[in-house]
Amino acid sequence: MNDLVKNIVTTQYVTLAHPPEEITLDSGAVLGPIEVAYETYGVLNTEGSNAVLVCHALSGDAHAAGWNTPEDAKPGWWDTMIGPGKSIDTTRYFVVCSNILGGCKGTTGPSSINPKTENRYGLQFPVITVGDMVHVQYALIQHLGIKTLLSVIGGSLGGMQALEWAARYPNAVKSIVLLATSHSNGAQQIAFDAVGRNAIQADSEFKEGNYDPEAGPRKGLAIARMLAHITYLSDQSMHRKFGRTLRDSDQLGYHLESEFNVETYLDHQGARFVNRFDANTYLYVTKAMDYFDIASGFDSLDESLARIQAKVLVVSFSSDWLFPPYMSQDIVHTIARNGKDISYCNIKSDAGHDAFLLEVDAISQMLSGFLIHTLYPERICENCPPKLCEGRDVPSVPTPEAVLSRPRRVDYDMIVNLVDEGSRVLDIGCSEGELLCRLQRSRNITGLGMEVDQEKVARCIACGIAAIHGDIDRGLSQLPDNSFDYVLLSMTLQVLKKPDLALKEMLRVGRKCIVSFPNFGYWRVRSTLFFQGRAPVTAHLPYAWHESPNRHVLTIKDFRNFCSKLHIGIEKEIFLHSDGETRFLPNLRAEEALYVLSTSENNIVAH
Amino acid sequence: MNDLVKNIVTTQYVTLAHPPEEITLDSGAVLGPIEVAYETYGVLNTEGSNAVLVCHALSGDAHAAGWNTPEDAKPGWWDTMIGPGKSIDTTRYFVVCSNILGGCKGTTGPSSINPKTENRYGLQFPVITVGDMVHVQYALIQHLGIKTLLSVIGGSLGGMQALEWAARYPNAVKSIVLLATSHSNGAQQIAFDAVGRNAIQADSEFKEGNYDPEAGPRKGLAIARMLAHITYLSDQSMHRKFGRTLRDSDQLGYHLESEFNVETYLDHQGARFVNRFDANTYLYVTKAMDYFDIASGFDSLDESLARIQAKVLVVSFSSDWLFPPYMSQDIVHTIARNGKDISYCNIKSDAGHDAFLLEVDAISQMLSGFLIHTLYPERICENCPPKLCEGRDVPSVPTPEAVLSRPRRVDYDMIVNLVDEGSRVLDIGCSEGELLCRLQRSRNITGLGMEVDQEKVARCIACGIAAIHGDIDRGLSQLPDNSFDYVLLSMTLQVLKKPDLALKEMLRVGRKCIVSFPNFGYWRVRSTLFFQGRAPVTAHLPYAWHESPNRHVLTIKDFRNFCSKLHIGIEKEIFLHSDGETRFLPNLRAEEALYVLSTSENNIVAH
Repeated sequence: MNDLVKNIVTTQYVTLAHPPEEITLDSGAVLGPIEVAYETYGVLNTEGSNAVLVCHALSGDAHAAGWNTPEDAKPGWWDTMIGPGKSIDTTRYFVVCSNILGGCKGTTGPSSINPKTENRYGLQFPVITVGDMVHVQYALIQHLGIKTLLSVIGGSLGGMQALEWAARYPNAVKSIVLLATSHSNGAQQIAFDAVGRNAIQADSEFKEGNYDPEAGPRKGLAIARMLAHITYLSDQSMHRKFGRTLRDSDQLGYHLESEFNVETYLDHQGARFVNRFDANTYLYVTKAMDYFDIASGFDSLDESLARIQAKVLVVSFSSDWLFPPYMSQDIVHTIARNGKDISYCNIKSDAGHDAFLLEVDAISQMLSGFLIHTLYPERICENCPPKLCEGRDVPSVPTPEAVLSRPRRVDYDMIVNLVDEGSRVLDIGCSEGELLCRLQRSRNITGLGMEVDQEKVARCIACGIAAIHGDIDRGLSQLPDNSFDYVLLSMTLQVLKKPDLALKEMLRVGRKCIVSFPNFGYWRVRSTLFFQGRAPVTAHLPYAWHESPNRHVLTIKDFRNFCSKLHIGIEKEIFLHSDGETRFLPNLRAEEALYVLSTSENNIVAH
Repeated sequence: MNDLVKNIVTTQYVTLAHPPEEITLDSGAVLGPIEVAYETYGVLNTEGSNAVLVCHALSGDAHAAGWNTPEDAKPGWWDTMIGPGKSIDTTRYFVVCSNILGGCKGTTGPSSINPKTENRYGLQFPVITVGDMVHVQYALIQHLGIKTLLSVIGGSLGGMQALEWAARYPNAVKSIVLLATSHSNGAQQIAFDAVGRNAIQADSEFKEGNYDPEAGPRKGLAIARMLAHITYLSDQSMHRKFGRTLRDSDQLGYHLESEFNVETYLDHQGARFVNRFDANTYLYVTKAMDYFDIASGFDSLDESLARIQAKVLVVSFSSDWLFPPYMSQDIVHTIARNGKDISYCNIKSDAGHDAFLLEVDAISQMLSGFLIHTLYPERICENCPPKLCEGRDVPSVPTPEAVLSRPRRVDYDMIVNLVDEGSRVLDIGCSEGELLCRLQRSRNITGLGMEVDQEKVARCIACGIAAIHGDIDRGLSQLPDNSFDYVLLSMTLQVLKKPDLALKEMLRVGRKCIVSFPNFGYWRVRSTLFFQGRAPVTAHLPYAWHESPNRHVLTIKDFRNFCSKLHIGIEKEIFLHSDGETRFLPNLRAEEALYVLSTSENNIVAH
C-alpha cells in the first residue's frame, strides 16, 4: 500500500453508494454508484484514534504526498506538510486524502461514464454541494473502518469541506483546521467564478458540455484558469515576481499579442491547466463553492456553527484577498461566541491565497502542536514541542525569592491564587501563554488567550493553548455577556489605546476582571519627576520617555477614581513591591497594583 | 454651441493631422487625418487663462457634462463635477473634454474608416500609447486657441493622461489633478487586461478584428467587461450591494446558469457594454494602459517626473484595489522629492476604483479650492472657500493677551517670528494649515503640510495650502536631505510612536527644526503627582490618563539630554507659560517648550 522508505504511494479506488443504496444529494437527486480515488499515508492505530483527513482545493486531487512513481517530477500537492517527521507526521497519524465528488481525478464526476446511459455524464451530472463532497468522504471513512477523525484539515475549498464536516458530523470529528477559507462564498468570489464559467460556456467548443474530452472548450477553460490564478496571488507578489518586465525584449513590441512576463506566466498556467483538468468539473466545483454557505438553512451563522463540537484552528493570510482574513475572523468570532475551543492566527505573508500552500514554516509549528495536543489532550506539557512551560513549577504562595527573580511577572503568582478551580478564563495580551499554561496545570481552568503578536499567538497554539490573534483595542464585541469567569489583563492596561472601553468590555464578557498595572504613584517615580525634573525610569517602568510602549501613565489613586466614575466594583486590591505585598501607603510604596473588579458596586474602597 | 440655461451641449468634431502633417506616434508609425470628438462648457476668457481639460477613462467619451438632447435619460459622465456652481465651475472655467485617440465615440480609432483603404482600420490601426492620446489632445487645444491649460484633470486612464500632459508639455499646464490612477500599470493590472483581451480574441466571432460591427465578439467583450467591472468595485461594496442574494428565488436552483444577483448585475453590465463599445477599441486602449509607464525612457521615476512644472493634486481612494493608494503615493513622494508643489489626499471610501466617479462631495471641496487657488495664486485668503484664516492677524511680537487667548497655540506666534522670509517650510501635523497660512501671508514662505486626518488635509488643499495626507511615524524617507529650510513639529512630538526617528528624519530633510511640546516638568504637573499621587491634568496636558492621545511624557531636562545623546544641536530654547516667555527655572516654570534644532553641535545648552 505505502512504501514509506521510498515514499511511493499508490492511488486506490473504491466504489461506494451502489444502487439501490445511492447517496441522496443536497439537491434531492440521488447518485450512485460513486467511485472514489484516495490515498493513505501512515498506519491506523489499534484504537483508531489517529486518523487525519486532508481535503483538497479546487484543482487538487487525492495525491497529497509522496511519489506515485520514482520517476515523478514532483511529489503530491501537500508533501511539504505530510510525511514522516513533518507537521502532519505519518509516523504518528494515519492520513487520508480523496478526490472530491464531481472531480476529474478518479472520483465520479461529470467526465465519468454514467452507468445508466454508458455515456459521459456531461451536464447530466447533478449539481453538487460541498456538503455532498463531505457526504461521500464520510462514506469512504466508514469504509476504511474509522469511527472518529482526529482532524479534518483543508485550505480554500478544502477548508469549506473541513468546516462542513464539523457541522454535519459533529461526533465524528475531534478537530478541524481551516486554512485560507470562508464560511460562505461572498459576492466578489461568486462574481469571479461566474466570469470563469461564462468564459467556458461562451467557448464555441463547449457544445453544451458534450465536448470531445480530447478537445473541448480549451480557450474558455484557459481564460477561467488565468483569471482564477490572478486571485490566488497578490498584487505585491505579482509585482515582485513579474513587475513590468517583457518576455523577449527590452522594447515594447507595439502589437496586440502577449509580451509582458506576467502574460506569459498566465498563458502558461492556462495552457497547463487545460491538459490536466476537465471543463465541466470546473463548472460544477465552482458552482459548489458559490453555493457554499454554512449558515444556509439556519437563522444565523451562530446557530449553524453551534453544531460544532470539534476543536477549531483557523489560519488566514494577510495578503489573501480571495478569502480575506475578515472571513476567517467571522468564523473565529462566531465559534468563540459559542464558547467552543477556538484558535486563530493571521499569518503575515505577501503570497496571497496561495500562501496556504507556500507558508510551510509558519503553518507547521501551529499545525503540529495543535494535532499532537488533540491526540493527547491530557498531557499538556510533555507533548508541547516548544516546551514552553518545561520545569516551571507553580508555588502555592509566591515566595519573596520568586517575586524577586521575576520582577515583571510578580502578578502571575498572585493571579494564579485568585482564580477558582475549573473556571473559564480569558487572558488578554496573553503573550506566549505562560499564565494560561500555569492556570491550566494548577487550576484546571478552560482558557482562551488573545494576543496581537503573530509569533506569540503561534507559540500558544503550538503549546495546546487556545488563543486568538487579535487586538483588545478593536473590542470584544464578538464575545457574549458573562461568557468567562475571569478576564485577565496583566500589565497591559497602560499600553491600550482606549483603556476605559477595554475595561467596560472585559466586565461585560467576564464575571470578574483581574487587572494589573505599573503604579506611576510609586515614590521613586514621583521623586524622579519632582526633584530631578525627569521622566522616571524604574524596574516596572523601564523605558526612556521616547521608547516607552506605554501610552498612559496612571497611579493607584487615578485608577480608584476611574473605577468609581465608571461604577466598577473593586473586590480586591493587591499592592506589590520588590519585597512582595505591601498594604501601607500603597500609592507611594507599590510598584505594581493588581485589582479584582466586578460590575457589583460593593466597592471595598471608600470614596 | 452651449445652451447653459438648458445645459444642452452638442458634441463637436474637428479633423486634425491632415496628411502630409500626420502625427508621428510613439511607435514611430504616422497617423492622419484624425477626427476628434469633443465638447466644451463655459467660455474661454480673454486672457485664455481659464481652460480646463477633462480626460476620460477607458469606456468614457467626450460627453462629460450636460445633456445632448432634452430627452436623454442621463447627463454626461461627470456632470456631478462639471457645471455652473459645481466644483469645475463652468461660470468660471472653460472646460474641454474629448474622446481619446483609438476610441469608438467619435475620435479616430480601429472602428473608423481608414481613408487609404476605405475599409475600417480593424487591427490595421497602429498600436497607440497614452502619450499619443495626449499628443492628439494637444493638437485639439491648439486648434481651440488655448496656449496654457489652467488644469488637466482625470481619473484612472484619465489620470494617466493628465500626468503625461504635465510631463510631455510642462509649459502648457499650470496644474494637474490625478484621481485613482498610477504612474504605470502594474503586473496585476496587466494580468486583468490580458485576460480581458484573451476573452475577446478567443471569441470565434472576433475574426482577427475584421468582424461585422453589428455582430463581432460580443460574448468575449462581455466577459472582458464583466471581469473589469469586478475590479472597479470593492469586496465591501459588492457585499453591501449584492451579498449572496438570489435573483428570482430564495431557493438555490441546482442548475449551472446564473442565479445570484451579482451574476445578474455582471450579465447586465456585459450586455449593455457590447451595445455601446467596440471590441477592437477595448484591445487598443487596454494595451495603451499596459504600456503606460511615465518613467519609461528615463533612469527613474524621479528623473521622469522632474519634468513636471505644474502644481499637482493627487487623490486616491482607500478601497481602490485596481489602482491602490500606494501607487498614488509613489507619484506624490516622487514629486515631493523633486521639490514641486504637491498635494495629496487618500479618501476613505468603500466604493473601490469607481469612487472617483462617486465620492463627489469629498472630491469637490478639494478640487474647487485647488482650481481657484491655481487661477488666483496671489489671493490666498479672499478666494479660500472655507475662509480658514479670515480676519486672523499676525502680531509681530506676541502680546500677553494674544498668548492668553490662545493658550494651546502660543507657540504659533513664536514660530512665525523664528522663520526667515521666503523660506521653504515643512509643517508636520499641520492640522488645517493655520500655521502655514500665517507663514505664507506674513513670511512669504513656500509651505508643505503633512497631516494624518483626511478632513484636515482636505481643508488645507481647499485653502490653497499644499499638503500631503500622511503619517510622520511612517517616516520622511520620500524627502531628500536638506530639502527644507525649516521643519516644524508643533505640540506633536509627544503623540508620535517613535519621536527619536521622527526627529532624526526631520533634521535630515530640514536645515533647522522647530519643535514644541508640553513640559511634564512644569511645577503643577510635578506637584500633582508628588503630593496628590495623581496623573496631572493641566491646560497643556488637558486629558485624563485614560483619554490622553499623548504617548510620551517628557520634561525639558529629558529633552535636553535626549538632544545631547543624539548629537542634535540646540540653537534656541524658548520657554512659555501663561504670562508669556520665561527664562528662570524653565523646567519648573514652563508649561511648554519650543526648540530650534540643527545638526550642528554648537549646542547653546551646556552638558
